[in-house]
Amino acid sequence: MVKSLVGKVIRVEMKGEESELVGKLESVDDYMNIHISNAVEYRNGEKIRNLGNLVLRGNNIILIQPYE
Amino acid sequence: MVKSLVGKVIRVEMKGEESELVGKLESVDDYMNIHISNAVEYRNGEKIRNLGNLVLRGNNIILIQPYE
Amino acid sequence: MVKSLVGKVIRVEMKGEESELVGKLESVDDYMNIHISNAVEYRNGEKIRNLGNLVLRGNNIILIQPYE
Amino acid sequence: MVKSLVGKVIRVEMKGEESELVGKLESVDDYMNIHISNAVEYRNGEKIRNLGNLVLRGNNIILIQPYE
Amino acid sequence: MVKSLVGKVIRVEMKGEESELVGKLESVDDYMNIHISNAVEYRNGEKIRNLGNLVLRGNNIILIQPYE
Amino acid sequence: MVKSLVGKVIRVEMKGEESELVGKLESVDDYMNIHISNAVEYRNGEKIRNLGNLVLRGNNIILIQPYE
Repeated sequence: MVKSLVGKVIRVEMKGEESELVGKLESVDDYMNIHISNAVEYRNGEKIRNLGNLVLRGNNIILIQPYE
Repeated sequence: MVKSLVGKVIRVEMKGEESELVGKLESVDDYMNIHISNAVEYRNGEKIRNLGNLVLRGNNIILIQPYE
Repeated sequence: MVKSLVGKVIRVEMKGEESELVGKLESVDDYMNIHISNAVEYRNGEKIRNLGNLVLRGNNIILIQPYE
Repeated sequence: MVKSLVGKVIRVEMKGEESELVGKLESVDDYMNIHISNAVEYRNGEKIRNLGNLVLRGNNIILIQPYE
Repeated sequence: MVKSLVGKVIRVEMKGEESELVGKLESVDDYMNIHISNAVEYRNGEKIRNLGNLVLRGNNIILIQPYE
Repeated sequence: MVKSLVGKVIRVEMKGEESELVGKLESVDDYMNIHISNAVEYRNGEKIRNLGNLVLRGNNIILIQPYE
């Protein structure tokens, strides 16, 4: 389900984190581990900081959706 | 057990989240990862916002039930 | 161990939840995902609400026991 | 490692719980799901209540040890 | 990576616990479940209590390191 | 995705921890368990302490990224 979002900008909520991440989904594996580029951290709708390239561990992802 | 709910509106509680999600269950895989459309976020019975399409990671789901 | 409880009323504690659930165990799979009918939510021994049919994700279960 | 404790009284700490459980280890499977009989719940060294028979989900166990 | 530490004294941080454990690593399996002997519990650098023999569930381990 | 970072300095956020770790990624296995050397713990951008060699359990990792 997530594979169809590769190449698009997504929003991700992680477990136990107050902030959320928005960035371009570069790749995803079978465990839903994802590689995001140009990641930006938001909290309560406000931009916190640029994080650039990062890998998120699949089992700690709560929610992924296309960012419009 | 969850497969029988595909095409129906469900309510989902996620781990470590105060809010809950209601939406149409589009698909579910063997890990209980689910795709929901027309998702709406509720907190204490009040609608918070529309979230549209989203994917929820199965291992962070607490509870799924038909929404009546 | 849980399979012997199918058809009986059980009490379940879920991870990160203050309330507990009591209901009839309809089925359980190899991951301890369980289907409960006539589920009732309790908090500190007081009934909170009827939840009816629901599926609980196995990896977020803390404890299951027969409800006497 | 836990299999050698079957038939003995053990102490178990569960994730996200303030209380701990003491009881006889009846059986354990490959996922460290355990069946305990005569379980007693303790908090800060004080007995809270008898819980009798119960099943604990292996992935939510923090620590198991012989209870002396 | 952890197998090279068998027979040595290690420090372990567990998920959701304020205290940490120090003891001799007796064995470790493929899931990083570990058996520790002569375990001692520390909090903020102070010794809390001796715990003796114990088994820690691998998926709830945050960090393992040699204790020097 | 993480394998390409072996030999480089990375930043890691762990689940349920306020601090973050920076160190050289020595190795990573299929479960994203990682071995870091020269690890340093930071909190709110301030260095807390040197931790040296350590192993982090993959399923409790939230985020890994190159540290620039």
